[in-house]
Amino acid sequence: MNKKIVIALDGMGGDNAPAMVVNGAHIALERYPQTEFLLYGDEERLKPLLARHRALRKVTTIHHTTSVVSGEDKPSTALRKRRDSSMWQAIAAVESGAAHCVVSAGNTGALMAMAKFVLRTLPGIDRPAIASFLPTTRGETVMLDLGANIEVDANNLVEFAVMGEVFARTVLGLTNPSVGLLNVGQEDLKGHDELRDAHAMLKRENLPVNYHGFVEGNDIGAGTVDVVVTDGFTGNIALKTIEGTAKLYTGFVRDAFRTSSFAKMGYLLASGAWRKLRKRVDPRRYNGGVFLGLNGVCVKSHGGTDALGFAHAVGVAVDMVRYNFNELVTEDFKRLREALGYAQEQGAAAAAAVQAAST
Amino acid sequence: MNKKIVIALDGMGGDNAPAMVVNGAHIALERYPQTEFLLYGDEERLKPLLARHRALRKVTTIHHTTSVVSGEDKPSTALRKRRDSSMWQAIAAVESGAAHCVVSAGNTGALMAMAKFVLRTLPGIDRPAIASFLPTTRGETVMLDLGANIEVDANNLVEFAVMGEVFARTVLGLTNPSVGLLNVGQEDLKGHDELRDAHAMLKRENLPVNYHGFVEGNDIGAGTVDVVVTDGFTGNIALKTIEGTAKLYTGFVRDAFRTSSFAKMGYLLASGAWRKLRKRVDPRRYNGGVFLGLNGVCVKSHGGTDALGFAHAVGVAVDMVRYNFNELVTEDFKRLREALGYAQEQGAAAAAAVQAAST
Repeated sequence: MNKKIVIALDGMGGDNAPAMVVNGAHIALERYPQTEFLLYGDEERLKPLLARHRALRKVTTIHHTTSVVSGEDKPSTALRKRRDSSMWQAIAAVESGAAHCVVSAGNTGALMAMAKFVLRTLPGIDRPAIASFLPTTRGETVMLDLGANIEVDANNLVEFAVMGEVFARTVLGLTNPSVGLLNVGQEDLKGHDELRDAHAMLKRENLPVNYHGFVEGNDIGAGTVDVVVTDGFTGNIALKTIEGTAKLYTGFVRDAFRTSSFAKMGYLLASGAWRKLRKRVDPRRYNGGVFLGLNGVCVKSHGGTDALGFAHAVGVAVDMVRYNFNELVTEDFKRLREALGYAQEQGAAAAAAVQAAST
Repeated sequence: MNKKIVIALDGMGGDNAPAMVVNGAHIALERYPQTEFLLYGDEERLKPLLARHRALRKVTTIHHTTSVVSGEDKPSTALRKRRDSSMWQAIAAVESGAAHCVVSAGNTGALMAMAKFVLRTLPGIDRPAIASFLPTTRGETVMLDLGANIEVDANNLVEFAVMGEVFARTVLGLTNPSVGLLNVGQEDLKGHDELRDAHAMLKRENLPVNYHGFVEGNDIGAGTVDVVVTDGFTGNIALKTIEGTAKLYTGFVRDAFRTSSFAKMGYLLASGAWRKLRKRVDPRRYNGGVFLGLNGVCVKSHGGTDALGFAHAVGVAVDMVRYNFNELVTEDFKRLREALGYAQEQGAAAAAAVQAAST
């Protein structure tokens, strides 16, 4: 438990980089004293930022890089032209063994493309996905994909379901996590073809996934299932909608308790409760996104995050290294992949039967 | 203002129908005394429910219908086989002039298919959409489509933008409402082809829409734009995700104020503020969905709503009749349609140019 954990940081990724990255690393170091950082980016900009944090400076090595992946870069462009970027070099540090994990708040598409190219996927995984925890009335739910795959087919969704199930089992420690497919209704006929086909496949009893069925947007917060599976477009919209609603609520609560002297007094008396509430619903607690399906720990932080949110993303990476997450996933996935391959054949037949019945 | 408003109700639509519909009408009548109801459904089930509400019974006429549209019915099946249903007959009452508007909490796809078939669309509108208000930090935002069109093309999205703009102008009373397209990022290259093409069309300066650009999930609650445009799949997920998050927050706040005696005392002192807050964020306030683009006022209530939520949906219909909403939309749309037709040609050229540049 006391082994050093070396974290490669993309110093230039994110709307508020590089200051947010350095300040985030500073917060993370206070929380996880046995970490070291390899900080990739423009040395001239990083050095004065790092100079403000004495402890961090001691455990951080700056690696100067000459280019930056922008939010406008297409993944294909990033792959071809950004090998000298902070993002690429940070990922490469994991591949070479210099770092245990990499954290970036940069362009998601580029990060995924590079991570796939440099780290490679786990055997049998076609499309890695981004997963994260979300707060629910019942505790926490894992949702994936949160933005790595804008368009998916039924097989991808089934793969996400299996990966999400393993993630919930190994990281959340659940024994038989339930899995739901995000849709606009619970009936078999709702949604896109891809969803209906994946639904038919996942309903197979012999698949090693405790499949609940279709779930809707309100089921995310209700914690109806332990794992919510969706495509990256819908998942990203849902995730950011949750964040926006959380912010809205925080403002509403603040306003409500400013309306009268009684309310203000009540607010003061309840200030401990109020702090607890804010901590519980702070979207920055849920800021880390994990790339599932890659041969290496790669955590994506939101592009618009601040230092505290970035520090949380670093914390997720530290936890994954500490608890050998990827090794456990790899082991479990080998076992699941056989069942999945079998179930996909069965599922394709079931999907064909559904299609035949509906025409 | 004192004219009678006759409302056709689908008595059998919704998870909690018919009791929820009758109880909802009861609440609506208390709020809008000059309303009358045509209640369509199973007379044997409706009569005893209605018997409990003396005032409502006096202004309600039950029209017995022999079939019900279920949540499992495909729109095409509903169109072919459910002409004697409560849903169909309630819509037909608007077409015949017997009612001013129709409210249903039934199967969205079937309701839209029937409403399109019976009421027809406004001239030049291909795909009607469902719009609703959502609470934001800046007031209220209109979002559409919320579930009528699971798959859309770029032209549909542009039509939604124009209809939403008119809706915000006429119903919310805004002079120059801003419109955003919901996406997974703000950059031109983000999202599906349909989104990028619609984005290119809407960016044309001569289009009579104050187009803000792409917005993300968190922009909904932030109120970044007055109108959020999206496809019906994403809109439905976002809407229900907001509801789920709102419920989650309400629970979190309640829990927080139960943690200590101080907190409980504070809670009691602030109970007025607390009531105000709950009212402000009650998802039932935002329960009415309006079908835009149809020759008749048709309001869709959520399938899972309760009587209070259904009463709010009735209130939206009453307001639309009272303020001649559809007449205003028709007038404004005629003017906008010409500009839109022009802009679509320009937009197609712009989209083609974008595509050519990106290959």
